[in-house]
Amino acid sequence: MQRAAGLVLGLRAGCCPRPRGWSSAAEAAGAVLKLRPERNGREWVLTPESMNPLVKAVEYAVRGPILLKAGEIEMELQRGIKKPFTEVIKANIGDAHAMGQQPITFLRQVVALCTYPNLLDSPSFPEDAKNRARRILKACGGNSLGAYSASQGVSCIREDVATYIERRDGGVPTDPDNIYLTTGASDGISTVLKLLVSGGGKSRTGILIPIPQYPLYSALISELAAVQVNYYLDEENCWALDVNELRRAVTKAKEYCNPKVLCIINPGNPTGQVQSRKCIEEVIHFAWEEKLFLLADEVYQDNVYAKDCQFHSFKKVLYEMGPDYSSNVELASFHSTSKGYMGECGYRGGYMEMINLHPEIKGQLVKMLSVRLCPPVSGQAAMDIVVNPPVPTEESYEQFIREKEFVLSNLAQKAKLTEDLFNQVPGIHCNPLQGAMYAFPRIFIPTKAIEAAKAHKMAPDMFYCMKLLEETGICVVPGSGFGQREGTYHLRMTILPPVEKLKIVLEKLKDFHIKFLEKYA
Amino acid sequence: MQRAAGLVLGLRAGCCPRPRGWSSAAEAAGAVLKLRPERNGREWVLTPESMNPLVKAVEYAVRGPILLKAGEIEMELQRGIKKPFTEVIKANIGDAHAMGQQPITFLRQVVALCTYPNLLDSPSFPEDAKNRARRILKACGGNSLGAYSASQGVSCIREDVATYIERRDGGVPTDPDNIYLTTGASDGISTVLKLLVSGGGKSRTGILIPIPQYPLYSALISELAAVQVNYYLDEENCWALDVNELRRAVTKAKEYCNPKVLCIINPGNPTGQVQSRKCIEEVIHFAWEEKLFLLADEVYQDNVYAKDCQFHSFKKVLYEMGPDYSSNVELASFHSTSKGYMGECGYRGGYMEMINLHPEIKGQLVKMLSVRLCPPVSGQAAMDIVVNPPVPTEESYEQFIREKEFVLSNLAQKAKLTEDLFNQVPGIHCNPLQGAMYAFPRIFIPTKAIEAAKAHKMAPDMFYCMKLLEETGICVVPGSGFGQREGTYHLRMTILPPVEKLKIVLEKLKDFHIKFLEKYA
Repeated sequence: MQRAAGLVLGLRAGCCPRPRGWSSAAEAAGAVLKLRPERNGREWVLTPESMNPLVKAVEYAVRGPILLKAGEIEMELQRGIKKPFTEVIKANIGDAHAMGQQPITFLRQVVALCTYPNLLDSPSFPEDAKNRARRILKACGGNSLGAYSASQGVSCIREDVATYIERRDGGVPTDPDNIYLTTGASDGISTVLKLLVSGGGKSRTGILIPIPQYPLYSALISELAAVQVNYYLDEENCWALDVNELRRAVTKAKEYCNPKVLCIINPGNPTGQVQSRKCIEEVIHFAWEEKLFLLADEVYQDNVYAKDCQFHSFKKVLYEMGPDYSSNVELASFHSTSKGYMGECGYRGGYMEMINLHPEIKGQLVKMLSVRLCPPVSGQAAMDIVVNPPVPTEESYEQFIREKEFVLSNLAQKAKLTEDLFNQVPGIHCNPLQGAMYAFPRIFIPTKAIEAAKAHKMAPDMFYCMKLLEETGICVVPGSGFGQREGTYHLRMTILPPVEKLKIVLEKLKDFHIKFLEKYA
Repeated sequence: MQRAAGLVLGLRAGCCPRPRGWSSAAEAAGAVLKLRPERNGREWVLTPESMNPLVKAVEYAVRGPILLKAGEIEMELQRGIKKPFTEVIKANIGDAHAMGQQPITFLRQVVALCTYPNLLDSPSFPEDAKNRARRILKACGGNSLGAYSASQGVSCIREDVATYIERRDGGVPTDPDNIYLTTGASDGISTVLKLLVSGGGKSRTGILIPIPQYPLYSALISELAAVQVNYYLDEENCWALDVNELRRAVTKAKEYCNPKVLCIINPGNPTGQVQSRKCIEEVIHFAWEEKLFLLADEVYQDNVYAKDCQFHSFKKVLYEMGPDYSSNVELASFHSTSKGYMGECGYRGGYMEMINLHPEIKGQLVKMLSVRLCPPVSGQAAMDIVVNPPVPTEESYEQFIREKEFVLSNLAQKAKLTEDLFNQVPGIHCNPLQGAMYAFPRIFIPTKAIEAAKAHKMAPDMFYCMKLLEETGICVVPGSGFGQREGTYHLRMTILPPVEKLKIVLEKLKDFHIKFLEKYA
């Protein structure tokens, strides 16, 4: 990448502290102008040209340019600049607490007790929370959240995760030794993919990801210089995964890489579909047949709203398919404290279960994890409560179940509301939100708007979302950040704002869309 | 890497659940035997042969084979197997709380208040802690530690870090915008190195690291396929850094790579030296001259014990050297919640300050951080208290300063004790522990022991440390895990055990060493 030489602008010094100088060569008028700050004639060591090209190639839409713009607009509002709205509503990310969802009391009680064990003497904390905290602390070095844990995570928490999985999956055996606590699911996915990537040229590892995908996957694939292999979800069929499409993708990929990994997101992000048991069976059979390592991103396993849908874990289906599968297919599955009804994103807690790992790979994985020492121990404690919440015989159960059901019934209501309202807008089509916490409606963008976007060097849906942000203060992410079939346009929006606010968001979006269609008709 | 075929051992099934089978080809007797488990004739997708070779090449001594062995011995003790000792003492890692150090009360109060804000109404928490908690929560989405923060970290905590640096460095200006909160210092160092690595063949990025080093550096360099360039610290001169040695290393490195990054650990880990101001000036001048990006690992900045030593930050010295340096030398410096007198390793909190970054690189860095969403917010809150502890006018000050001084005076006492006791042992030489929390004594290993180690396919100091562990229960890390001049041998031991226990450890080590010398005389 050649950077254009800078401009003499007569502001060699003083206008702002950084950058401190500008190169003196002027560029021919009319060309795209790029300023090249320099410092006493010295070049930086680390520049856009000299930096890691793999990092440079990474894109991450969820916190990309649209969020930067949202930040700018917020600053302008703070400075009193008049806008047609009074606040920016960030519906770009699944951040429940930021949208006003209250933490689950029991989880916070246990983590507070672990943090400050003097509270174990306080009568204002329930005994069941104290018991949880005592058990966790006993398993921590020096009985402190401040000690490093084992790199794989605190032993008793891994045991609780294993018990949770067995309960969830109707008794399928789970070995705590296969459980690894992580710094959120992102960290786990990154670790496993890093382990898997090898080879050069045509034998470079290919990683199959759904389109639309969660952009963590494409970002990690860029960073690891792996080969991204797209398989398309079927929008006409409620974003279902079709194994024939998987087969098409793998067959084609074999021409230029070594497809070795298959990533599944279920329930889907950004697409919200919940996979049927039959579909999961077919996927597992396909992975078995094609010798693919399976990654099941199941962080939305508690977020299923559609009455006719149910969450089936890949682990459970794998075991139910019999020993040929259950002792052969390599599977990593991921969960997190961030989603579900707890929504504890900030704790960066998570776990992964690794099934049918080659015995020597386990050592390699532990070695790799130990370089980062351990996941945050407070996040591990939070994970413990996600998998080990109060049971009916415990005193905190009633409050817990009330809080849990409030969150989940609210989300179910908002999922339906969002689908219904979107589908009332001409030029917007929204599949049912069966699960997760996003709507990913298809939006019709008129040809004139596409041309206007091109003139702004923007993807059409980025142009749409930028206009939406500027005119309404609503921050959503363009579908191009997740991938979509060419010529189709989408946006991703969380359904996390409180019901009344969500209604306003959807009304504003509708008005904006209608005006947008008129403007570019 | 060719793996040997497995053995027919007559245990095709049933002996243990994993591995499930063994290949049938027998190997010639006398060769090193390696078992190759297989599953119904199927090979794994992820094997030691197919895995990422960069990850495979990683070594990490601090939690390596010696810790695995320590774990085995602990299990044996639990099962009642008799040993010449009753407990394993893990002096392999700087994990203060695991060694019985108590958390600083104020820090835990603030984090507990942030975790469970109901406690803000409790009379048993001091007002200054409540004020800190309120301020942090106000800056969190939804006033919750459970919301994602900005990828760069919570704004008011970054402001507090900036204020801390200005105070520490006598008023040198610090921009909160240059502060990035991290998941411990390891995460920050990994992020910056990842950004810096590029090129192939002779233009591949070379990264200068001290020998002995903290093995995070060598591990990351392996992972990134960068080129490790060693510069040796001067053991005869109390592990001082000699710029002539830096020059030698860079000159030589230019023959086969592009040396671009210079890593400094001050106070030193594992070597415990504290750099003089003069030395830092010389290093900065050298970095300026050679156009090197500086990484200053300053996580032990609060751990200085020697009366004639003082911590000088690279930032401060850089600014004092005048604008030619302060506006040109690119510097990343790192700090953490894990060390100092707080010792909050489990929180995985940290920050980095990035100085003189190219303006476009900032965007690249934020993009990269945003893929992992944010550092753990509870760790960010802990970091806030590390940089913003109680001041003399606050009610918690007295208790805070008492706790702080107890920890630091204890460490100073143990640093002296360790040095003195080691130097009384024939065949052990230990430099003064000026700072940090480790002793890195040189140990004399007799020729016969070196031969015995060779027969066991072990580095001589690994052999020594394994014997020490097996015979005394003391777990330390061999110098070979950190790097050392050829033909010299060392071990790294933390000085974190309580004084009485540390004395026992040092006595046992002395007795072991004398017997070891006799045995292999």
